[in-house]
Amino acid sequence: MFFASDNSGPVPPQVLAALAEANTGHVGSYGSDALTDQVTDQIRTLFEAPEASVHLVATGTAANSLALATLCQPYDTVFCSPVAHIHEDECNAPEFYTGGAKLTLVPGSDRMTPDALRIAIKGQGNRGVHGPQRGPVSITQVTEQGNLYSLDDLLALTTVARHYDLPVHLDGARFANACVALNCTPAEMSWKLGIDVAVFGGTKNGLMGVEAVIFFNPAHARAFELRRKRGAHLFSKHRYLAAQMAAYLQEDLWRDLAQTANTRSAQLLNGLQGVADIKNDAQANMIFAALPRAVHQRAKAAGAQYNVSGAPDGTDPSEMLTARFVCDWSIRPEDIETFLKLVHSD
Amino acid sequence: MFFASDNSGPVPPQVLAALAEANTGHVGSYGSDALTDQVTDQIRTLFEAPEASVHLVATGTAANSLALATLCQPYDTVFCSPVAHIHEDECNAPEFYTGGAKLTLVPGSDRMTPDALRIAIKGQGNRGVHGPQRGPVSITQVTEQGNLYSLDDLLALTTVARHYDLPVHLDGARFANACVALNCTPAEMSWKLGIDVAVFGGTKNGLMGVEAVIFFNPAHARAFELRRKRGAHLFSKHRYLAAQMAAYLQEDLWRDLAQTANTRSAQLLNGLQGVADIKNDAQANMIFAALPRAVHQRAKAAGAQYNVSGAPDGTDPSEMLTARFVCDWSIRPEDIETFLKLVHSD
Amino acid sequence: MFFASDNSGPVPPQVLAALAEANTGHVGSYGSDALTDQVTDQIRTLFEAPEASVHLVATGTAANSLALATLCQPYDTVFCSPVAHIHEDECNAPEFYTGGAKLTLVPGSDRMTPDALRIAIKGQGNRGVHGPQRGPVSITQVTEQGNLYSLDDLLALTTVARHYDLPVHLDGARFANACVALNCTPAEMSWKLGIDVAVFGGTKNGLMGVEAVIFFNPAHARAFELRRKRGAHLFSKHRYLAAQMAAYLQEDLWRDLAQTANTRSAQLLNGLQGVADIKNDAQANMIFAALPRAVHQRAKAAGAQYNVSGAPDGTDPSEMLTARFVCDWSIRPEDIETFLKLVHSD
Amino acid sequence: MFFASDNSGPVPPQVLAALAEANTGHVGSYGSDALTDQVTDQIRTLFEAPEASVHLVATGTAANSLALATLCQPYDTVFCSPVAHIHEDECNAPEFYTGGAKLTLVPGSDRMTPDALRIAIKGQGNRGVHGPQRGPVSITQVTEQGNLYSLDDLLALTTVARHYDLPVHLDGARFANACVALNCTPAEMSWKLGIDVAVFGGTKNGLMGVEAVIFFNPAHARAFELRRKRGAHLFSKHRYLAAQMAAYLQEDLWRDLAQTANTRSAQLLNGLQGVADIKNDAQANMIFAALPRAVHQRAKAAGAQYNVSGAPDGTDPSEMLTARFVCDWSIRPEDIETFLKLVHSD
Repeated sequence: MFFASDNSGPVPPQVLAALAEANTGHVGSYGSDALTDQVTDQIRTLFEAPEASVHLVATGTAANSLALATLCQPYDTVFCSPVAHIHEDECNAPEFYTGGAKLTLVPGSDRMTPDALRIAIKGQGNRGVHGPQRGPVSITQVTEQGNLYSLDDLLALTTVARHYDLPVHLDGARFANACVALNCTPAEMSWKLGIDVAVFGGTKNGLMGVEAVIFFNPAHARAFELRRKRGAHLFSKHRYLAAQMAAYLQEDLWRDLAQTANTRSAQLLNGLQGVADIKNDAQANMIFAALPRAVHQRAKAAGAQYNVSGAPDGTDPSEMLTARFVCDWSIRPEDIETFLKLVHSD
Repeated sequence: MFFASDNSGPVPPQVLAALAEANTGHVGSYGSDALTDQVTDQIRTLFEAPEASVHLVATGTAANSLALATLCQPYDTVFCSPVAHIHEDECNAPEFYTGGAKLTLVPGSDRMTPDALRIAIKGQGNRGVHGPQRGPVSITQVTEQGNLYSLDDLLALTTVARHYDLPVHLDGARFANACVALNCTPAEMSWKLGIDVAVFGGTKNGLMGVEAVIFFNPAHARAFELRRKRGAHLFSKHRYLAAQMAAYLQEDLWRDLAQTANTRSAQLLNGLQGVADIKNDAQANMIFAALPRAVHQRAKAAGAQYNVSGAPDGTDPSEMLTARFVCDWSIRPEDIETFLKLVHSD
Repeated sequence: MFFASDNSGPVPPQVLAALAEANTGHVGSYGSDALTDQVTDQIRTLFEAPEASVHLVATGTAANSLALATLCQPYDTVFCSPVAHIHEDECNAPEFYTGGAKLTLVPGSDRMTPDALRIAIKGQGNRGVHGPQRGPVSITQVTEQGNLYSLDDLLALTTVARHYDLPVHLDGARFANACVALNCTPAEMSWKLGIDVAVFGGTKNGLMGVEAVIFFNPAHARAFELRRKRGAHLFSKHRYLAAQMAAYLQEDLWRDLAQTANTRSAQLLNGLQGVADIKNDAQANMIFAALPRAVHQRAKAAGAQYNVSGAPDGTDPSEMLTARFVCDWSIRPEDIETFLKLVHSD
Repeated sequence: MFFASDNSGPVPPQVLAALAEANTGHVGSYGSDALTDQVTDQIRTLFEAPEASVHLVATGTAANSLALATLCQPYDTVFCSPVAHIHEDECNAPEFYTGGAKLTLVPGSDRMTPDALRIAIKGQGNRGVHGPQRGPVSITQVTEQGNLYSLDDLLALTTVARHYDLPVHLDGARFANACVALNCTPAEMSWKLGIDVAVFGGTKNGLMGVEAVIFFNPAHARAFELRRKRGAHLFSKHRYLAAQMAAYLQEDLWRDLAQTANTRSAQLLNGLQGVADIKNDAQANMIFAALPRAVHQRAKAAGAQYNVSGAPDGTDPSEMLTARFVCDWSIRPEDIETFLKLVHSD
């Protein structure tokens, strides 16, 4: 009954098998190996982007920070949601990698609206050299609050960005969960909508630690690679990143893992209806839901693990406390059933 | 016949086994897992440093840059050899992580002498606020040219640093090879000599990508951890770094791997005597040796892989060209024999 | 009729006289001159802070950025108002000087409330290493919207900061205007309230370009001086900064200039009553006031200079448009009268 | 008898007069004033570069650091002499402003040779992404050791830079002294030789603190201006920088001041012949010369001020100790005579 994070589960056996398979003989270091070439080509094919530049890094924060740094100047500002991972959960990594660019928080919720984005953009860059200049727009799909932008939503945002000639970054730590939930292709959720650089996340979806950064305009490739090395994110034994990604791409494992995680989440969501107050759309693999304190206490006493926000010191058993439930691919249906029985047992 | 790098070979089966063993159930993310605690304790024990703070990162450049950044201010200068990895091979990562500190190159060879270090230190920090201030001393053991500092050599350097109240960083990408060659303990090659922070490298010695950064004064721990996160080097699925390190520490695998690599290198060195002009001490796992162009051509034609410096366009078959030969743990004795036969076949 | 900025007027004759007086013979460079020592002592006396470290720089942005950088780490966040100069008007200079720290905008108006500050502080620093750490609180007095914090207001803010053990920076670009308006001493508006570092601005109040940065705890002095040099803000011919400051301090010129500016502003404010909708408290030297478009058109046609926000393309003559009126010491009463006649002439 | 620095003398009366003249009425701030436009045009005319972008800053370190930052990426390295001001005397400001670029010291003396520069360039940028990339070449004219590059020397260096497609920066803190010594025009010593950005220094040659940064390709203008603001080097009361520069340009005051300084230096040099061992070419306004300790003691006892390097604790009266003598425009011939009498008095 572990719903605390999709960073906590094991990797599927295919990943271990791929590591073992790759573990033979001497190969070129720092990405000059055949497996890296292979997955680069596979990702280009998957994204229907034969010219794209593809780069592997080991953490999502590296992927985001390096991508943004490649697209902006230190005197620029990045536009993002107030709850964006790049703002709240990366300990100033974007500021570090960009050399001190600012993040402008687009007011509203986790899903930026085109109007709010437009107003935020207009509110910057209008002070000559005094204020920061307008820089990239960063969109998180799935959002940090477990919601999805529809393809139309995304297009509306990229259209605003394009109007101001700003590049668009997609934080796709849960790219696969979104693709599955929207039943679309990677291309449909990225460059076909005007995304300039997408992070195709693997870590939260079953890899040990690999994210692919994909620039649809390869003119950025060299600068990215130099920034990756300078950021200490170029792996000498790059084949082990490539091997994980190879497994991920093999027979659409990435899609299967995400489908499983989303299905488990739907199972949980279904079981929570009635007793819980569901706070988000929960179409992917994250549910935000309020439950009575007594339910949380019962579930936690039985070993369920997940995060509850607020009021840890309260005592009212009926007070509703919001929890985040995340399902990864490895959650078992029977664990969800067990948890739901606990929820419903009074 | 692959002697190009110790970043190119496979990992030993114990590492894959440890990854598989760790790959079960849900565990805390970002280092809050039992395996991370275990290897932290094991490293403290190995280094006889129960108070030390221990941090895992995935690349040597991250280990060095973060360690130096923790120990110095952006207006400082780091003292190192002109061929130090931090100077030549990290694409300004130390400058990036320190916020723009300078590297002062101690004139001489790969092995800094105490006198040269003293003169270099005295040559900085004597211009009030105009020049950079004196910062950490960074020592590479094994050096980039395959040489070793003796324990006395190291002590002489740390004594100079201590005289000026400067902290000392040990770039130990090949820490294990050095320990084996010097037949000493990790403690004897680190804090007992006055090293403040040591990088205990695993990547070049058989891991996929793990280095341990060890501060013998744990007061630096929090700043390091914040810088690691800000640098995007904190792994969410930290257990897979920890698992590799656990395998490395199990029954002194780290020592066995280094012993094997050094032994192979000695075998190669022995076979090169007479025909080659050996350029370094070659006590660890790297040999710099000059051989006639004709020998290189013959070896390369037969598939041997290693780096030769200089004169690629020359034609004189007898011209001596210096090559770097690196042996990792996975080199087979018979491959060395095959190679040596090629060398000696005229 | 120039109300656009207090960066646009001339300097008083005392400043030119002081430059001329200082312009004799050879003196030590980079601050090692007697005049610098003199003004340092005078500022300590003025602030009743005999131990304070005092540093002169030429721009307000330098003063703020260097002060903040000295007080925070690159993984910290600074707390400030959403309209703070450091956020809106310094082109990411604070982010640059701090090495990439973040600014957390305390929701509300130009004057932070203790409650909003407390909530903002509590909202940061609670994510372990994932989010930025809590850093300095930055307060602007007079605010960018021409309002004043009372001494009690300031104390309430510093009390919150102290509760979280956070240092407090006072952006005092208009320090003198505030002191005069509040009828208090510099000490009463700074360290006696718990301010850790104050910028005692001279530029907007009649100097060519000098600000004094005052750390009430001199332990920060050395780091500040190194950062000042590294930021290229240490003047070689430092006497010309010191001379301006000497004139400023002589017989409380700083106070007289601010008194004059505030008095002119009060004259203007008085004349605007009735016809204008006054938007701020206007106790210092800045008035934000809405006037009909027709009035603006008439005034501008007659040569009045000031900034009007919004709706430049509108045509409705009765539409109220908000303007910023700033009075510096050199505005003449008769110019204000002329302007007011224009305002009232229909 | 002050020969310690050309940062220590007074400014000529024309500068004070220009400040007074500019000190009237309200003008646009942050460089939007007529005087700034005027001096921009005058500098373009002086440099025969009608398209150049011209920017004023207050310190030489700001001029150099901002110019270099505009021309290079953080993963680049700048090529300069081992005694360059940007390396030795700016407390890591270039590293700070470039975001962590490296300085590669071209071995040899203060005057880089084309061969040494070529070798240094070839020694960088040949490690793929592992080492820093080749960045700007920075040349100091007059050098820190008081020597001059001839125009041919400069052309030889820019030719090397051009061969590798690298931009060239001229640190012209003593640009005027060089122009006078070489009897050439500013254009002949800058863009006609292939210099991309020149610092036309005013501070050491009689201004309070103004340097002009001149990009001969104005495509860099916007980035420079944003970096200047972000670096806190954009003056709000910009007219007072412009006024100083206006005086400097008026009737070639800059040339007269430099001519005077160079003439004084020649007078001193002439008088030192025979008794001193002259260490540099001394064609501009700096002499490096060794004199017996006894002479130094006699001169210093009589009040002469200048810097002597080395051996402060020695006692041998005949030991030769090297001193630096710098003449500024305000040194009087009679002071030089007095000093020379002291030198020759035994």
